[in-house]
Amino acid sequence: MRLPGRAMATFRLALIQLHVSPIKSDNLTRACGLIREAAKQGAKIVSLPECFNSPYGTKYFPEYAEKIPGDSTQKLSEVAKECSVFVIGGSIPEEDAGRLYNTCAVFGPDGTLLVKHRKLHLFDIDVPGKITFQESKTLSPGDSFSTFDTPYCRVGLGICYDLRFAELAQIYAQRDDGCSRDVVSDIWSSAVDNQVYVATASPARDDKASYVAWGHSTVVTPWGEVLAQAGTEETIVYSDIDLTKLAEIRQQIPIFSQKRSDLYAVEAKKP
Amino acid sequence: MRLPGRAMATFRLALIQLHVSPIKSDNLTRACGLIREAAKQGAKIVSLPECFNSPYGTKYFPEYAEKIPGDSTQKLSEVAKECSVFVIGGSIPEEDAGRLYNTCAVFGPDGTLLVKHRKLHLFDIDVPGKITFQESKTLSPGDSFSTFDTPYCRVGLGICYDLRFAELAQIYAQRDDGCSRDVVSDIWSSAVDNQVYVATASPARDDKASYVAWGHSTVVTPWGEVLAQAGTEETIVYSDIDLTKLAEIRQQIPIFSQKRSDLYAVEAKKP
Repeated sequence: MRLPGRAMATFRLALIQLHVSPIKSDNLTRACGLIREAAKQGAKIVSLPECFNSPYGTKYFPEYAEKIPGDSTQKLSEVAKECSVFVIGGSIPEEDAGRLYNTCAVFGPDGTLLVKHRKLHLFDIDVPGKITFQESKTLSPGDSFSTFDTPYCRVGLGICYDLRFAELAQIYAQRDDGCSRDVVSDIWSSAVDNQVYVATASPARDDKASYVAWGHSTVVTPWGEVLAQAGTEETIVYSDIDLTKLAEIRQQIPIFSQKRSDLYAVEAKKP
Repeated sequence: MRLPGRAMATFRLALIQLHVSPIKSDNLTRACGLIREAAKQGAKIVSLPECFNSPYGTKYFPEYAEKIPGDSTQKLSEVAKECSVFVIGGSIPEEDAGRLYNTCAVFGPDGTLLVKHRKLHLFDIDVPGKITFQESKTLSPGDSFSTFDTPYCRVGLGICYDLRFAELAQIYAQRDDGCSRDVVSDIWSSAVDNQVYVATASPARDDKASYVAWGHSTVVTPWGEVLAQAGTEETIVYSDIDLTKLAEIRQQIPIFSQKRSDLYAVEAKKP
């Protein structure tokens, strides 16, 4: 495992638990304001939640969808450059060649688009009396893995239901030489099983929304400890990530060298 | 997914949280007594903890090791037949051709040896100030997956640290058409990620032992709910498993059909 230099071994992460309203321009203005606030507090990587510019629901996606680059992501690019931070743009409904995707755009501190992650696993579930949802009614799935590099660590991206599929985090962990993080839920198992930090940004809870987000944006360490967690309201969750601790854990419980590659393998079929 | 017939859709599982002493014959007598008690209470599958006939520690393994079949497993075979239950023999130190293994022997209700699982991932960890352990000092690892069939479901076996490696449960889940269980710790993520029941039998806690077991034998549902859990003392944990619920969950949140086999695969390299 390649260790980052000492100067880059720690950094501050911020998760924006945004209150998402039906007014797109308000969502963008408030998101950018909170990114500026996070940067002022020393954050170097700032993440927004899934669907931060649009209510979450299949009926909203066509109306709120945009090209990438487009108006919403242009604003993220500008604020990333203005504040000199990495911005993980949660997700927005994306339109491309007549199809819609649930897409996360990531911008570097100079404002360039680093990577675009389209949700791989659409949220199609039917639990009678509890929840029925079918993203595939309007969305198409992405078809590639998505990571980007920072001076601190490599970051692997997933959107919400993506993390329900352990293989994604396993493949990111294989490609990772420092740390991995996902803009996702269902986090504990991924963190411990793969010895990575897992950070998940949720929207703030809005009981009047058609889909009520859980809130509780969380950062979990490779030990499975909750490093930071929000309540349900709009807020910023800060976490000081110490990558030397990650290196220690991987040395103390060396699961990667102990894997039985003679017996099994988790294989990525695309780069 | 093949569903078991209605008559076989539910069964009672028992985990024996055995107090393990340095006296092998006592351990065996008490284990068999508790298996009889569990059968009397209607259990159809009964599991013992890891190292149930020996203290846990590399210095003990050579002294307590036996052949399989041998004295200890002969007793398990007899009690399985006497009570007409499946007995998952936790594990014992096994000697074979000059090597030692940490091995689980499983017996059917007619007393036959159904399968033998040798721990695949030896517990070699070094967390300064907390725990240092090196099973590989005296043990060799097994080299095959282990499942057996019952009228209720298929059961996949792992021993303790085996479950720290998500691939094992993933491969068992692929092979499974009803349910899967493991005699292991670190259980929650395996249950939810693979939509299986996970049952783990621990020894009772003994603060005077050189290795202090955690206790808290647990059964977790595919929803991640704790169905039953022990404290730290010697006891039997009972769980009534309803496989129709498992079928429901897999229908409601169909992660197996939603896996992106175009993007990734978990591959078993042995049968």
